[in-house]
Amino acid sequence: MKDINIVVSHSPQTYSVFIESGLLHSIFDYIEVKKYTAFYVISDSNISDLYVPMVKKSLQEHTEKTVRTYIFEAGEKNKHLQTVEKMWQDMADNKLDRNVLVIALGGGVVTDMAGFVAATYLRGVDYISIPTTLEGMVDASVGGKTGINLGHLKNYIGAFRQPKAVLIDIDTLKTLPDRAFLQGYAEVLKHGLIVDNEYFDEASRKSPLDMSADELIGVISRSVEIKAEIVQEDEKEIGARKLLNFGHTIGHVLESLSMNTDELLFHGEAVSIGMIAEAKISEKLGMIKESEFKKIEDAISQVGLPVRFKGTNSIDSVFDMLITDKKNRGGKIKWTLLTRIGEADFNIEIGEKFVREGIDYILT
Amino acid sequence: MKDINIVVSHSPQTYSVFIESGLLHSIFDYIEVKKYTAFYVISDSNISDLYVPMVKKSLQEHTEKTVRTYIFEAGEKNKHLQTVEKMWQDMADNKLDRNVLVIALGGGVVTDMAGFVAATYLRGVDYISIPTTLEGMVDASVGGKTGINLGHLKNYIGAFRQPKAVLIDIDTLKTLPDRAFLQGYAEVLKHGLIVDNEYFDEASRKSPLDMSADELIGVISRSVEIKAEIVQEDEKEIGARKLLNFGHTIGHVLESLSMNTDELLFHGEAVSIGMIAEAKISEKLGMIKESEFKKIEDAISQVGLPVRFKGTNSIDSVFDMLITDKKNRGGKIKWTLLTRIGEADFNIEIGEKFVREGIDYILT
Repeated sequence: MKDINIVVSHSPQTYSVFIESGLLHSIFDYIEVKKYTAFYVISDSNISDLYVPMVKKSLQEHTEKTVRTYIFEAGEKNKHLQTVEKMWQDMADNKLDRNVLVIALGGGVVTDMAGFVAATYLRGVDYISIPTTLEGMVDASVGGKTGINLGHLKNYIGAFRQPKAVLIDIDTLKTLPDRAFLQGYAEVLKHGLIVDNEYFDEASRKSPLDMSADELIGVISRSVEIKAEIVQEDEKEIGARKLLNFGHTIGHVLESLSMNTDELLFHGEAVSIGMIAEAKISEKLGMIKESEFKKIEDAISQVGLPVRFKGTNSIDSVFDMLITDKKNRGGKIKWTLLTRIGEADFNIEIGEKFVREGIDYILT
Repeated sequence: MKDINIVVSHSPQTYSVFIESGLLHSIFDYIEVKKYTAFYVISDSNISDLYVPMVKKSLQEHTEKTVRTYIFEAGEKNKHLQTVEKMWQDMADNKLDRNVLVIALGGGVVTDMAGFVAATYLRGVDYISIPTTLEGMVDASVGGKTGINLGHLKNYIGAFRQPKAVLIDIDTLKTLPDRAFLQGYAEVLKHGLIVDNEYFDEASRKSPLDMSADELIGVISRSVEIKAEIVQEDEKEIGARKLLNFGHTIGHVLESLSMNTDELLFHGEAVSIGMIAEAKISEKLGMIKESEFKKIEDAISQVGLPVRFKGTNSIDSVFDMLITDKKNRGGKIKWTLLTRIGEADFNIEIGEKFVREGIDYILT
């Protein structure tokens, strides 16, 4: 028998996250224009009518190369294969070669889907990500996760692919409705809770709605740094990344349940309430003190994020969905819980009693 | 402004290509079974009725874990998104998690498509490749290219993803019709022509149809090694991989043209004739001697591969299609040509006259 050993070495990739006010007017400055034959801007109908022309103009003022845009109808319901297929086809129809740069401009749906298009067109082309929502900036922007839904299965199809750069213009937050802006702040507070006590204190001092541009840049920067530190440690999501699940186990269930009510929760709002429940579980298990729990709840409440779930009074309905959800994925629930403010642990299995206590707390 | 630098380092991946007779009976031995929750065998209707049950049996004799198979209708015409979507859905319906191992069993269409499914299901799961055709063994098995067609555009959608292992059972070649077996040998001879003079001599001594198992293992092994050396040097296809294009520029055109005739060429047969044309161009340019050209033609002819194209008498029809083909990709033709037997050069631009002389030769 012959056995031939093949080594495929990838050199480490690096990219920068730039955070600035007014950056969209000069995105040309952040792109290695010489390298590309064309630019393909992907965005959706949620994006302010201003931004796509702004990006297009910034590029066209500096290059004669093709700048094409593709705008799809906004919404998670369009984050599927059919939309991706249309983009592939549009790119092929326009004879874009593998030296095209894909520019993803929008919220998480846009950056996830455009990243996947870039990951798969001609076996992969470059892309840059320009997140326009707070959660897009502090969460989805780092980690290289791209993907689409398969029917109702969220992000079932996708790839890991790092962008060439992430451009964050904090001015885009100002055009968001307050509630949509604020909800993204749940991820900021989460980053503080799981790894940085001081940052949590600082970030919960006031609502992001009341922050100056410099304050926002400071808070977002640290949040991106934390996300980046965790992701660099664990690119393929086998260990430390699980810290980022804090608030999400129960949060996801609340988000789904809210879809059957009149009070649809934003993802960040569901995570916010999920963090309260999971901090309460941490307290009940004796992992954090009651005073720490209190401080967390006060802080989250003070920035304006919700701390109670109004979609049901039934502990069972939340608990049962949690179990069904996990059974479908074929495993036991492994919790990420706090060991103090600014520190968490993952892969924790706990008794049903504690889960129910956590749920009970957010329903009352 | 804040600028945060993110480093994503990938550790080098390694995998083995195992080449053996009778390997399919014990594929269990080549798989780290503990690591996986389930096995998903993808194959097509071309594959001998024996092999899928053989692989299934080898696994089921050693593990209680789920072994599921997915067989699609054979043919390049099914190498598209709809087939991939059905597989994704089937995997999701069967609740396969990210610890599933995809096993691609078949020719190039199977391994390309199954590799793409593995590259994108849940943002990527492991796969092993079991090529059952000679060209699959010596060509597609190494390099990590996966992909599907977008309409008539070949391999427009895909990803680079390395398998965990490649298992080559030379016994599968024996169940192929002679012509289908033999055509894959064009890639073997190509490997000799572009980088290894001695290997070319050895490989052209007799037809693979007349070789013993040990001789076949020897020839295939060296071919895989050559492909691996080139690919390791140039994983993303920006340089040395272009050597592998030898015979393919004209070969692709002949393959397409033959589709409109009664004598449809196999890919390898078209490449075989393409190599003759491109070796002739090399000779006309003074890059190789007439005696070297003669030796190449004799060798290719002797193993039983075709050296003339019977689909047309018109130099123009071949030439025009070559030009159209390239224009569609927006560039000039860059040729890979021989500098002697066992050495080639790439990115060569040449005058129309030489191209026509090469084409003329294979039509007469």
